[in-house]
Amino acid sequence: MPIRFAILGAGRIGQVHARAVANNNDAVLAAVFDPVAEAASAISAQYGAAMRSVEEIAAADDIDAVVLCTPTDLHAEQIELFSRAGKAVFCEKPIDLDSARVRACLEVVEETDATLMVGFNRRFDPHFMGVKAAIDDGRIGAPEMGIITSRDPGAPPADYIKRSGGIFKDMMIHDFDMAVFLMGGMPERVMATGSVLTDPSIETLGDYDSASAILSWADGGQVSISNSRRAVYGYDQRVEVHGSAGMAAAENEHPVGIQVATAQGYTRPPLHDFFMTRYVAAYANEINAFIAALGGATGGIPVGRDGLNALLIAEAALESARTSKAVDIAI
Amino acid sequence: MPIRFAILGAGRIGQVHARAVANNNDAVLAAVFDPVAEAASAISAQYGAAMRSVEEIAAADDIDAVVLCTPTDLHAEQIELFSRAGKAVFCEKPIDLDSARVRACLEVVEETDATLMVGFNRRFDPHFMGVKAAIDDGRIGAPEMGIITSRDPGAPPADYIKRSGGIFKDMMIHDFDMAVFLMGGMPERVMATGSVLTDPSIETLGDYDSASAILSWADGGQVSISNSRRAVYGYDQRVEVHGSAGMAAAENEHPVGIQVATAQGYTRPPLHDFFMTRYVAAYANEINAFIAALGGATGGIPVGRDGLNALLIAEAALESARTSKAVDIAI
Amino acid sequence: MPIRFAILGAGRIGQVHARAVANNNDAVLAAVFDPVAEAASAISAQYGAAMRSVEEIAAADDIDAVVLCTPTDLHAEQIELFSRAGKAVFCEKPIDLDSARVRACLEVVEETDATLMVGFNRRFDPHFMGVKAAIDDGRIGAPEMGIITSRDPGAPPADYIKRSGGIFKDMMIHDFDMAVFLMGGMPERVMATGSVLTDPSIETLGDYDSASAILSWADGGQVSISNSRRAVYGYDQRVEVHGSAGMAAAENEHPVGIQVATAQGYTRPPLHDFFMTRYVAAYANEINAFIAALGGATGGIPVGRDGLNALLIAEAALESARTSKAVDIAI
Amino acid sequence: MPIRFAILGAGRIGQVHARAVANNNDAVLAAVFDPVAEAASAISAQYGAAMRSVEEIAAADDIDAVVLCTPTDLHAEQIELFSRAGKAVFCEKPIDLDSARVRACLEVVEETDATLMVGFNRRFDPHFMGVKAAIDDGRIGAPEMGIITSRDPGAPPADYIKRSGGIFKDMMIHDFDMAVFLMGGMPERVMATGSVLTDPSIETLGDYDSASAILSWADGGQVSISNSRRAVYGYDQRVEVHGSAGMAAAENEHPVGIQVATAQGYTRPPLHDFFMTRYVAAYANEINAFIAALGGATGGIPVGRDGLNALLIAEAALESARTSKAVDIAI
Repeated sequence: MPIRFAILGAGRIGQVHARAVANNNDAVLAAVFDPVAEAASAISAQYGAAMRSVEEIAAADDIDAVVLCTPTDLHAEQIELFSRAGKAVFCEKPIDLDSARVRACLEVVEETDATLMVGFNRRFDPHFMGVKAAIDDGRIGAPEMGIITSRDPGAPPADYIKRSGGIFKDMMIHDFDMAVFLMGGMPERVMATGSVLTDPSIETLGDYDSASAILSWADGGQVSISNSRRAVYGYDQRVEVHGSAGMAAAENEHPVGIQVATAQGYTRPPLHDFFMTRYVAAYANEINAFIAALGGATGGIPVGRDGLNALLIAEAALESARTSKAVDIAI
Repeated sequence: MPIRFAILGAGRIGQVHARAVANNNDAVLAAVFDPVAEAASAISAQYGAAMRSVEEIAAADDIDAVVLCTPTDLHAEQIELFSRAGKAVFCEKPIDLDSARVRACLEVVEETDATLMVGFNRRFDPHFMGVKAAIDDGRIGAPEMGIITSRDPGAPPADYIKRSGGIFKDMMIHDFDMAVFLMGGMPERVMATGSVLTDPSIETLGDYDSASAILSWADGGQVSISNSRRAVYGYDQRVEVHGSAGMAAAENEHPVGIQVATAQGYTRPPLHDFFMTRYVAAYANEINAFIAALGGATGGIPVGRDGLNALLIAEAALESARTSKAVDIAI
Repeated sequence: MPIRFAILGAGRIGQVHARAVANNNDAVLAAVFDPVAEAASAISAQYGAAMRSVEEIAAADDIDAVVLCTPTDLHAEQIELFSRAGKAVFCEKPIDLDSARVRACLEVVEETDATLMVGFNRRFDPHFMGVKAAIDDGRIGAPEMGIITSRDPGAPPADYIKRSGGIFKDMMIHDFDMAVFLMGGMPERVMATGSVLTDPSIETLGDYDSASAILSWADGGQVSISNSRRAVYGYDQRVEVHGSAGMAAAENEHPVGIQVATAQGYTRPPLHDFFMTRYVAAYANEINAFIAALGGATGGIPVGRDGLNALLIAEAALESARTSKAVDIAI
Repeated sequence: MPIRFAILGAGRIGQVHARAVANNNDAVLAAVFDPVAEAASAISAQYGAAMRSVEEIAAADDIDAVVLCTPTDLHAEQIELFSRAGKAVFCEKPIDLDSARVRACLEVVEETDATLMVGFNRRFDPHFMGVKAAIDDGRIGAPEMGIITSRDPGAPPADYIKRSGGIFKDMMIHDFDMAVFLMGGMPERVMATGSVLTDPSIETLGDYDSASAILSWADGGQVSISNSRRAVYGYDQRVEVHGSAGMAAAENEHPVGIQVATAQGYTRPPLHDFFMTRYVAAYANEINAFIAALGGATGGIPVGRDGLNALLIAEAALESARTSKAVDIAI
């Protein structure tokens, strides 16, 4: 019996997840909701999913799982709603911008014994998975140090930044999760700094567009993270982990793998334009992993606690950037 | 109005094309045929296509285009059948192993004014397209020399080889088409050699598993091609073109873009295992290009004459390998 | 008239500099000193340089310049001696492990109007020079953020560590200088952390073997540095600088540029074993730059103030690692 | 006792070899000859070598070995002269442009039991040596197929081409030797083609500027070679060898290993400008190998027969290009 899905939110990422559900032989895309009727009806037409309200989906007997692609400020509430309704929940990160709210939400998840997966898509990128596998296979020994680089092609609009929680909770949070994922546990402390280099209006909003951080683990582990809202050569996404016996690194993915050599030298085309093209495989893989987990697979998916963990690091990093002191990370 | 498709042949490549048609907003997968009912019914179930016979498809008013994934020895006959029935035809290469038969078939296509696209999928690979675009954009000047490398992970079974037409018509034909595509015209002469290095049974079958060729153009252009049925590190697919002002080269695509560095050095994972994983994007792109062409797009697709051209080069190459002389290519 | 040189210290690095002086058409290696007579006589025999005492060299009319490859604790004193004697001085870094002592020494240099070059060899590496040139040529816009990675193949012996000043003054000091060199000015603040991951005996010595730092500039610039005393795959030396219009990065130099592909994947040989093989060109270039500067060239060489600057950053970094606070860098 | 050398020919390559001899602890550069006195005196001044005539060098008791950097048409005669005089001879390739003359010369070498090394410098390039070592270590199994690419930055002047013997004897001869070196034996047959693409005046001289060849071995081995007198991106020098168990390839050496990424993509600087900068290490290594061989080392050096072998392949390739037939290679 295929698992029956509803998608909430039929925007750009909702469409990506809808396709992944529809292409998976073990799932059926049964329902879709979006406050914008045209958006919902496009997915409905393409995949034969019924258009329903949030309440109808929660109440439906024929829906096993929901995918939340709704605005962040609805996430916690909807996770609670669907957990109580007995649905498995896949939620785009973050659960909430406030860790106290996340903790409250995760209590409901625990009480209701719901399955909650948080959309840390990068864990499902083939290249980062390759790094993780190299570590797990013992090829580099115990992971000890790391360097993570994330650079967005350009800064988002002011409206987005206002609601984003700032660079640490919106952007570097992915790197914090990646660090935890690859190092195999939570850091105890963070030092961070931020500045505004690309657009003065970001300073007006109280945010940074450029940030660096050092995470420290109790066993001596260290991870350096460098973030920028600007990378004119494309979406720059790299990780490297150093262990006692070697190093594993994921290179940037080049969408067009050519070189053109002229008198000026060798040129390769720019990187992907952003996450929607860079993480095509990761988005499909994460939905497939969710479906597999619901079917009993034990491969491991990022759960609510992972969402909370990354947020706790982000909160500490923000405090460090503001106080110029190393900050212990809450647990 | 979406274009209505039928797929003939529901094997591995038929499934790939079925998915591409189904995912294209301008097309509908309306019918499927396969002599093995289970194969046809799987595609039928997944995409809601009707199961029909070849004759029903040819006679159907509601089918605009067919995709032929049938055995090679049926291609010419089916192209004629569907051309006469007023359907547009996408046919997997080759049209036939004998150039005389291909010529006869193309006469029917011409008489019936049918659209025929031949499945030279590599023309739609993003990397090879990148090389072609660099040439067309004038970045390397006029193309003058080329080096093309194709190495299969392993030799096919004897049964396949027997029906394949041999390494020049089955394998190097892709490189011949690529050479014509990138150099922008037909070569006039070919020198080739072949030997058996991987499996003595291939010699028994009168074929080679290793072959090299040099194509020469009337204007002095030269392309070297190296083929092997064995590459333990994966499916090796590279082209480079040198022009008066530079060079454009497509690198191998690495499915997992990581490096692991240990005391033994830096290691990257092997290449794709074969064409089904290597050319995922190319297969989707070629069907999309066919659909776009039917809709009036002018982007250019490989047509019947391209299929004939590559076969004529292959026939000359085989003769050259057997006679140890340069052989003029028929037109 | 060639410039006449004396080398003080005929050990490993002394031999490297002796060869560079001897190979330069504008210089003559006239004298050599080493307390170990065999060491001095080897250089003497090979290049026809006279064996002399420190005092004789200082007093000699026929010596224009000295190269100090003596132990660190003699550097400041010898710089003062030769500055007062009217010789130009090339001194291996550091001038001294204590910034107060360096300041006193540089006062003598200034008073005597001597030329003092400090051996920050990496500024003369062709790859790092290429990054610097890309910045100076405006190819990446104003430099804003950087990532610098230095990983030694293995930890030095305890005796070395004891006299080294610790990882920040001994190892990361090169990266601090590189950061100043590439960013074009002094940072105002540093956050750093250190731990012991490779050898517990390093902890006993009060040092770290693994360290991370973030440098901050007044204009918002940020540079992340990651250091380790262990890299089993060879001597890992990379820099990248991000500017408003792009990025410039120096890759690791591979002494043997081959790839071997097998069923296990693609393998490249390890990196250089350490600085003596990695920085062959840099060592020759820096002596040539010194000779050129003495001849009136204006290409720019690292002077005493550069040595002091890097040391001041190192002192601040050490304090930051010990106090877990960002530390302002003295000027 | 160091081996005492004379250099004949103090031009560009003579200076390179003079430096290598002078830097080798087991050798002394004792004498130099050049018809242009200034050229000889420059080397004489720099290394303290005596200026002598050819006859004086041949007659000298204190000269053990000579390095011939004289014009090609003097090589055979001088090899004979110095062989008879009991000197070891290092001779720049080729021995002669005519294989009959080479055979006669080698008879004298054999009769006099002289040591003759031919300057196939590429055998001593670290990267090509790495490929050879990978083969010899069995990492790729038995070598079976190869692809060799040599592209010069630009065509030489007409005067040079007239005396060069043409592209096969002057340029591709290096690749023929490399093919023999890596495949481990002589091919039995060659197919080749040539054309003029860069400069019509080369056609007037009866030569080609672009050539492709396929070498075939009796055991089925095949090597493809592509040559051009034009590569605007620098001196392009690559080899790859495929064996039963894998592939070994030498990449181009990038003198400046940086990448600059902008909105236009990632750019690396061009390659070396030509052989004098590309093969710095190879030139030093080959002289060191000659000196080591004279001292009894058994590492293997290219001898007279290797020079003849490459020439025999070149003669067959030229005939093939002219006759459009595969040509058997003389032995």
